[in-house]
Amino acid sequence: MISTKLTELLGIDHPVVSAPMGSVSGGGLAAAVTQAGGLGLVGVSYGDAAFIDEHVGYAAERGGVWGVGCVMFTFDERPGLWDKVLGYAPPVIALSFGDASQVRRYVESAVHSGAQVVVQVHDTEQAAVAARAGASVLVAQGAEAGGHHKTQSTLPLIPAVLDVTQGAVPLVAAGGFADGRGLAAALALGADGVMMGTRFAATEESLATAGFKATLVSAATTDTVNTRSFDVVRGIPWDTAYTARSVGNSFTRTWSGRDAELAAARAEVEPEWVAAVARDDTSQRAMFAGEVLDLVHDIRSAADVVRSTVTEAETALARLGPLLHTS
Amino acid sequence: MISTKLTELLGIDHPVVSAPMGSVSGGGLAAAVTQAGGLGLVGVSYGDAAFIDEHVGYAAERGGVWGVGCVMFTFDERPGLWDKVLGYAPPVIALSFGDASQVRRYVESAVHSGAQVVVQVHDTEQAAVAARAGASVLVAQGAEAGGHHKTQSTLPLIPAVLDVTQGAVPLVAAGGFADGRGLAAALALGADGVMMGTRFAATEESLATAGFKATLVSAATTDTVNTRSFDVVRGIPWDTAYTARSVGNSFTRTWSGRDAELAAARAEVEPEWVAAVARDDTSQRAMFAGEVLDLVHDIRSAADVVRSTVTEAETALARLGPLLHTS
Repeated sequence: MISTKLTELLGIDHPVVSAPMGSVSGGGLAAAVTQAGGLGLVGVSYGDAAFIDEHVGYAAERGGVWGVGCVMFTFDERPGLWDKVLGYAPPVIALSFGDASQVRRYVESAVHSGAQVVVQVHDTEQAAVAARAGASVLVAQGAEAGGHHKTQSTLPLIPAVLDVTQGAVPLVAAGGFADGRGLAAALALGADGVMMGTRFAATEESLATAGFKATLVSAATTDTVNTRSFDVVRGIPWDTAYTARSVGNSFTRTWSGRDAELAAARAEVEPEWVAAVARDDTSQRAMFAGEVLDLVHDIRSAADVVRSTVTEAETALARLGPLLHTS
Repeated sequence: MISTKLTELLGIDHPVVSAPMGSVSGGGLAAAVTQAGGLGLVGVSYGDAAFIDEHVGYAAERGGVWGVGCVMFTFDERPGLWDKVLGYAPPVIALSFGDASQVRRYVESAVHSGAQVVVQVHDTEQAAVAARAGASVLVAQGAEAGGHHKTQSTLPLIPAVLDVTQGAVPLVAAGGFADGRGLAAALALGADGVMMGTRFAATEESLATAGFKATLVSAATTDTVNTRSFDVVRGIPWDTAYTARSVGNSFTRTWSGRDAELAAARAEVEPEWVAAVARDDTSQRAMFAGEVLDLVHDIRSAADVVRSTVTEAETALARLGPLLHTS
C-alpha cells in the first residue's frame, strides 16, 4: 500500500488514476479501476446524452470512488449535459481544457454538487488559476501525454507546479507514466499520484477498438506524432495551444500541418473519414497514445494494471532506501 | 551520501554530473563539480586547441575524477583535436551526437586510452548501439534538455532504455533535472544518477556570459524555443534530427523555421551575429537552456549546486519510505 495526500483525501487505496479518455474510458474501465482501489474516471467529453446515461450510469451503479472527466469547452457547447452529469452525483469531477473563467465556473458548480474537484493544468500559470478557483486536486499533465496536451514536459513541470502551490493541493502527475517505476518517480518529485491514459487504453475494459488496441501493443514511441488533424476534420474548436499526440498513420501523414486546407476540404473529407473510423481503419482513425508506447506491450485487465503499478512502485521505493548511506 | 552503480564505477561521491556544455563548461566549472564530489565534464566541442590546452589542462591539473565531453561529428571535422584531448588522459570521456560508426570508433579509441566512456543517447535504438559498442555508462537525454536534443522526453525514455540494457550499463538521466527532487525521481525510475546542464550553466564558475547568466535567472520555461537557427548561422552541420532549446530572442523570432533562407543569407548575417555575440547581446546570442528554467532562480557556486541537489534528494528519498505501508 502506498498512502499519499491523494489517497487520504479521496479515500482510495492506491494513488493511481485512469485518465478520462474520450471514446476510450467508459463505465466498464472506470468501474474496474475503482474496484481495484484506484480512481476510475469516465471520459464523457465528445459523449452525448446516451453515452452519459450508459457509461456514467454504469459507473454510478457500481459505486465506490469513481468520477467523470469533462473537457470544459465542449460542455459549454452542449447545454444540459453538465446537469445530466451532475445528476449521477459523481464523487469526483475532473475538469480539463478551459480558460480561467470556465475553470472558476465549473469548479464552483462541481464543488456545489458535493464532488471532489480535480483540475488538469499544463503550466504554472494554469496551476495558480486552478488552485485559486478552489480545485481539491490538480493534475499536471506534460507533453509526453497521448491526446491533447501543451508543450512542457512532466518531469520539470511537476516540481515547478509544486513550487507554485507549495503543496497546498494534492498533485497528480500525468503524461509519461505507464508503470510503477513512473509512479515511484512521481512520488519522488513530490506528486501524490499518477494519472495514466495509454496504459489504461490498452486494457480489456477500455472502449478502444480492436485495431486501436492492436496498434497500442505494436507501435513504438517514435511512431507518435503531435497533430491537430483529427480536431480539424471533426470540426472541434480546440485552442491551438494544444496539439494531440496520436500514433501516426496515413491520415496524419496526409494532413498534419495543413490545418487550413483540411478545414476548407472538410465537407468532402469528413464523411469519408467518419466512414473509415466506423470500420476501424487504423490508417485513418485517431489513435491517441503517449510517449509511453515503448512501455506498453500487452492488453491486460485494468485491475492488473493497477496492481502491477503499485507493486512495481513499492519495489522501486523499497530499493531506494539502501542507496542512502550515512555520510 | 547516495551510492549507485555510477558512483561505484567511477569512484565519485555523488551521482551528479555536470553537462559538457560548449562555451559554458570550462575547466573551472568541471574542476569545481569534481572537487564537490560529482563528475565535472569540460565541454570541448566547438573548442579549438587553445581552449583544450587552457580548460582541459586546468581540469587535469586539479585532478580527481573529471572528464571531457566531445560531440563526435565535430571531432571528425577537426583532425588532431581528439589526440590532443587524449593527451590529457581524462579519466572519463563523454561522447555525444555521432552515428553508429562514429560511436564504435570513438568508444574504442577512448576505452583504449584507459578512460571510462560515457555515451549519450536519445532513443532506445541509440542505446542499443552504444551498449554494443562498449560504453561504460549511458546518458539518456530527453527533449527537456537545453541545447541539442531529439524528441523523446526523459520520463518515459529512462525506463524504455533500461528495458533495452537490462541495467547492464549504469545509466545517467539527462534533460529536465535541476534539483534533488529530480535526482530522487531519476533514481526511482531506475537510473543511477543525473546530468544537469542549465543548473550548472547558472553557476559562478560557468563560462556563460553575464547577459546569459542574467537571462538564466530571469527567464521562464515558457520562454524557451527549439531552433536550428544558431546551428545554421554558424554553419555547423548538425543532423536535422536534433534541434537546440534556447531562450527565445529577436534572433530566433526572426530566423526560426527559415533555415534555408538563413543559410542563403549567411555571408551577410553571420558577421553581424558574431559581432553581437561578442558584445554579449542577449537579443541575438544563443542562450541554450532547458525546460528547468522555472526551477533556476539564482547564480550559485557549483559546489553548492552539487551539495543541495544531493541533500534535497536525500530528503526526498527519506520521505518516500513512510509512504509505504504493509497492506
